[in-house]
Amino acid sequence: MDRCAEPGLPANDRFARALRDVYEQCLPSVEGAVADYIPELAAADPEPFGVAMATSTGQITTYGDVDREFTIQSISKAFNYCLALELLGREEVQSFVGAEPSGDAFNAIVFDPQTERPFNPMVNAGAITVCGLLRRALGEQALDFVLDRYSRAAGRPLRICEPAYRSEVATGHRNRAIGHLLVNVGAALEPIDPTLDLYFQLCSVLVNAADLARMGATLANIGENPCGGDSVFEITAVRDTLSVMFTCGMYDYSGNWALDVGIPAKSGVGGGVVGVVNRQLGIGTFSPRLDAKGNSVRGVRAFQCLSSEFGLHAFDFTNYGSQFVNDVLLKAPR
Amino acid sequence: MDRCAEPGLPANDRFARALRDVYEQCLPSVEGAVADYIPELAAADPEPFGVAMATSTGQITTYGDVDREFTIQSISKAFNYCLALELLGREEVQSFVGAEPSGDAFNAIVFDPQTERPFNPMVNAGAITVCGLLRRALGEQALDFVLDRYSRAAGRPLRICEPAYRSEVATGHRNRAIGHLLVNVGAALEPIDPTLDLYFQLCSVLVNAADLARMGATLANIGENPCGGDSVFEITAVRDTLSVMFTCGMYDYSGNWALDVGIPAKSGVGGGVVGVVNRQLGIGTFSPRLDAKGNSVRGVRAFQCLSSEFGLHAFDFTNYGSQFVNDVLLKAPR
Amino acid sequence: MDRCAEPGLPANDRFARALRDVYEQCLPSVEGAVADYIPELAAADPEPFGVAMATSTGQITTYGDVDREFTIQSISKAFNYCLALELLGREEVQSFVGAEPSGDAFNAIVFDPQTERPFNPMVNAGAITVCGLLRRALGEQALDFVLDRYSRAAGRPLRICEPAYRSEVATGHRNRAIGHLLVNVGAALEPIDPTLDLYFQLCSVLVNAADLARMGATLANIGENPCGGDSVFEITAVRDTLSVMFTCGMYDYSGNWALDVGIPAKSGVGGGVVGVVNRQLGIGTFSPRLDAKGNSVRGVRAFQCLSSEFGLHAFDFTNYGSQFVNDVLLKAPR
Amino acid sequence: MDRCAEPGLPANDRFARALRDVYEQCLPSVEGAVADYIPELAAADPEPFGVAMATSTGQITTYGDVDREFTIQSISKAFNYCLALELLGREEVQSFVGAEPSGDAFNAIVFDPQTERPFNPMVNAGAITVCGLLRRALGEQALDFVLDRYSRAAGRPLRICEPAYRSEVATGHRNRAIGHLLVNVGAALEPIDPTLDLYFQLCSVLVNAADLARMGATLANIGENPCGGDSVFEITAVRDTLSVMFTCGMYDYSGNWALDVGIPAKSGVGGGVVGVVNRQLGIGTFSPRLDAKGNSVRGVRAFQCLSSEFGLHAFDFTNYGSQFVNDVLLKAPR
Repeated sequence: MDRCAEPGLPANDRFARALRDVYEQCLPSVEGAVADYIPELAAADPEPFGVAMATSTGQITTYGDVDREFTIQSISKAFNYCLALELLGREEVQSFVGAEPSGDAFNAIVFDPQTERPFNPMVNAGAITVCGLLRRALGEQALDFVLDRYSRAAGRPLRICEPAYRSEVATGHRNRAIGHLLVNVGAALEPIDPTLDLYFQLCSVLVNAADLARMGATLANIGENPCGGDSVFEITAVRDTLSVMFTCGMYDYSGNWALDVGIPAKSGVGGGVVGVVNRQLGIGTFSPRLDAKGNSVRGVRAFQCLSSEFGLHAFDFTNYGSQFVNDVLLKAPR
Repeated sequence: MDRCAEPGLPANDRFARALRDVYEQCLPSVEGAVADYIPELAAADPEPFGVAMATSTGQITTYGDVDREFTIQSISKAFNYCLALELLGREEVQSFVGAEPSGDAFNAIVFDPQTERPFNPMVNAGAITVCGLLRRALGEQALDFVLDRYSRAAGRPLRICEPAYRSEVATGHRNRAIGHLLVNVGAALEPIDPTLDLYFQLCSVLVNAADLARMGATLANIGENPCGGDSVFEITAVRDTLSVMFTCGMYDYSGNWALDVGIPAKSGVGGGVVGVVNRQLGIGTFSPRLDAKGNSVRGVRAFQCLSSEFGLHAFDFTNYGSQFVNDVLLKAPR
Repeated sequence: MDRCAEPGLPANDRFARALRDVYEQCLPSVEGAVADYIPELAAADPEPFGVAMATSTGQITTYGDVDREFTIQSISKAFNYCLALELLGREEVQSFVGAEPSGDAFNAIVFDPQTERPFNPMVNAGAITVCGLLRRALGEQALDFVLDRYSRAAGRPLRICEPAYRSEVATGHRNRAIGHLLVNVGAALEPIDPTLDLYFQLCSVLVNAADLARMGATLANIGENPCGGDSVFEITAVRDTLSVMFTCGMYDYSGNWALDVGIPAKSGVGGGVVGVVNRQLGIGTFSPRLDAKGNSVRGVRAFQCLSSEFGLHAFDFTNYGSQFVNDVLLKAPR
Repeated sequence: MDRCAEPGLPANDRFARALRDVYEQCLPSVEGAVADYIPELAAADPEPFGVAMATSTGQITTYGDVDREFTIQSISKAFNYCLALELLGREEVQSFVGAEPSGDAFNAIVFDPQTERPFNPMVNAGAITVCGLLRRALGEQALDFVLDRYSRAAGRPLRICEPAYRSEVATGHRNRAIGHLLVNVGAALEPIDPTLDLYFQLCSVLVNAADLARMGATLANIGENPCGGDSVFEITAVRDTLSVMFTCGMYDYSGNWALDVGIPAKSGVGGGVVGVVNRQLGIGTFSPRLDAKGNSVRGVRAFQCLSSEFGLHAFDFTNYGSQFVNDVLLKAPR
């Protein structure tokens, strides 16, 4: 089997069978509803379903509608945070946005009472703050820079869905309010409009499930795209990003996800979910029907199945922890 | 080197050196203050400091005041949750207490607005709910049962500090309020006093840093005490417990801890912290001075050093994820 | 027409006609539902409806079911506050309970963040605090003392509904929680159980609509029962009580009530409402069906009609303000 | 003594003496600090102090710095609400903004959870909503229309302080955030900027203490300027406005103000307070040092003295309630 195979070609029989099983288990679910806060999302076909897994060794296995494009939405928050950490360093980023789960909904207008900063970069307030930091570091080049990184992680050029972007701009009153509040507390700089624009643009990037799997695999592979070895993300930023994805990535379902699935992940209201099994796998799913917390119903189900099937949970007994400890300390003296 | 060595005897030179280095780095810190909400805590000597690491292979390495006893306090919450999961099953437990970090302080009187249940078992409301479940499952035997499990995990018989317990009973108005609220929302049953008693008793168990390391190692070793192989905790309950410790274990610092240290852990206002590196290590620290969030200042610092020194972070590049995936899927076809 | 006439005998034709009109206007409404949190309330006949007005000159006019008894419930809060002000003075009372409307529901567990005290004496937390103050001032005699004052205001001996009281004791988990919290913040003293008992007992006093009108008239008449001149309440305590009834008396509908009705009032979930037109009238209504905020539907409607019909709103153009200003300052020089 | 006398000329000896006494009692207080959120306020001279009373019979009595101009700030909220009620009717206005005190600070970002509307028109969110309604009713003419009404109430042409206005525009991030949130919940229409502009402009109107007294007297006189009889405000809108001033006018001190002073009033961070004794008096004070709740320290003190001295409290025993009741019902049969 070749590395960096095309989507659709089973990289490995066991993976392929597992993906097909998961797909078939989850397909019958028609629970949930497509997001409806902008016309572009409300008009989405609710039926497509795709699952893709890409390994840190460069193989990809897919099933279902993995070429169907959708807007990345909040999944962008994870990658943007990773880039801000690289560009400004953790200390600087942390002085503007925390890393604390808050139990609040993604669009809550609530800041950490101790710091007057957004709780974490996965809620809108924190994500807009991160876009402000990217603008500060990159100026007018911010969009191109970030889009280039997304594209290199996905292994193909990605682009923005203009109607979705314009719709976000036209209807994003709550995010606009958050933006002005961030200026008010000093977490963002004036003018806030270019920062909000960047945020809306990055939410409107079109991806498919295979892209998400490859982007996830790039994070899994300590920031290097497994196909070709392009170094896309900085290694320590990746670790921090995975940590925050684990505690905050699935909106106010994150804690239950950590318990049940145990994979750093991020979902978006466009119907996508990306998951990252450290050093091993990127997983992407797409199905637009969302549950009440804003997560793709079939996506959540698919991750539950895959985690259970392959022992992917970070604290499963199959996860032996630090290789360093194993090699140097535990195994040696036995 | 012998397995199941006595504390104080270095199990491994590298461990021993590392522990000594960490101890010496952290000792000078005199930041923070001892807890003062009950006289027993307020009167504690602030100076002791001990660090202990126990491996899943049965070795223990210690440095400093690792025999000094203190009350386990909130660290009990993690073990109680593990036992409730074993006794009642996850589904039943989850119908009474969530697994969602809330960003609130440990004694916040706030329930998940969707479920009217405590957010998670690591805040007081959730921990009292768990004690109610233990009472329901075990009746009058609850205290003995739980204390026996703690003791088997620690490898020595543990006992309650009566003055601390009586002091908690006398002054625990806020917890008593929480108890009555739990009855009100249906998360606990009447009478609430025996449940609160059990909660206060389990908070008052005396442990030392070496005990915590061994109790942590028992969790790390999928529930089996590495010294002697006594099966103390149920394997799936352990996984769930580690997940919740990771997202909620360090009060409203949990998210930053996940970012920075990346080890499932639980702290108590008695000055202890227990950490669990899955399949590898239990770590126990003791130093009574607490920061504003209620975590031991030197304890937090010691864990930061150890995590960094040994690559213990769950999402560090040294953690290769699922052994199953490595063995069956990734390595095979290369 | 005689003063201090028996209920049912029209004191004044215009009053009598107005009451009958209001009664007939409001009777058809069957909106709302009886309170159901204790069996005694849930089993109440929803149909009775009575309206009573007592003047500060000692006349009473009634219509409908004005002899039908029901539990006074939260209406007791207003009179208890008045008595605490008399016994301890405003400054002392204010150091334990504020006078600020909070917009929260009556059973909210929320304290003024600046003072850590209950927002006002009309929410449960504040009312329990007031009962604690009454216990502190009066000890074991508190119940008899307060019941005597209620009775003298009503002009007949009132008594407690034992089943309602016992039911409150058995099911009042939320109020019990509030009690323990009050101890925790220092707004109430241990033991809290006798204070809660007093609170539950005073909520369980049986009154009828005519009683409420007379109790209101006693407040209107600067604390003196207009029939017989018994001095029941202290004059400055009355003013403070009316002020707090105006801003906080109708749960989280108080502001709209102030706008629409403009009469200091207090409602209870037993279906009663008492209103006080300063120096002029006490008004009592009874109809058990409650709206979502906990106020009697027909009671609210009846007060709207009466306020409009007689120009009773405190800021209506028919209210000329301070007689002193009129007499001494405004009229003199004209 | 002449009606409509010039400020500074004592209308009545008793008034004049009282005002002088109050002035002298309150002058020594140097507690509090000038508002500092915009440079124009921060640079204000903290020392001036003026007190003015205007009767509904057209007399005015003043003492101290009653000609000194300052920005009206939040006092505008009361008058704007009165105009919105006139232009759109109570029902329409109430469908956009409640009348419920909330216990929150003036700039709180919190809506009534039941209605998703601002709690009341005296918090910023509600006041901006009201400005949106004025814009909707009056379009581009809104500012001129409102300014004309203010001027006719004050009896002289008022104008905007341009630097204060521009400063508000430049720094009003929190209010801008509130504006976008109002659009989001449907309480305000796009574009929000003209509405915010109107809000900022009306906050920047320059008044002095004598103006406030006359504006208050116009409200007291059921909307008619006592000097000349110009009908400025609509009579039922006045009643509603006084009600809301009583329950919500002094920020989160409103309940204590109702208890202690008992006069419908509104304060602004420019240092002004306007009070209205129904049918009798308008009172204006000016002193820029504010307490922690945002109310003028000397202003609050002056109102306490005046209320006590003249029995102005709405529920004082000197207030006999409805004249109609007195004339028709109570006095007749005695």
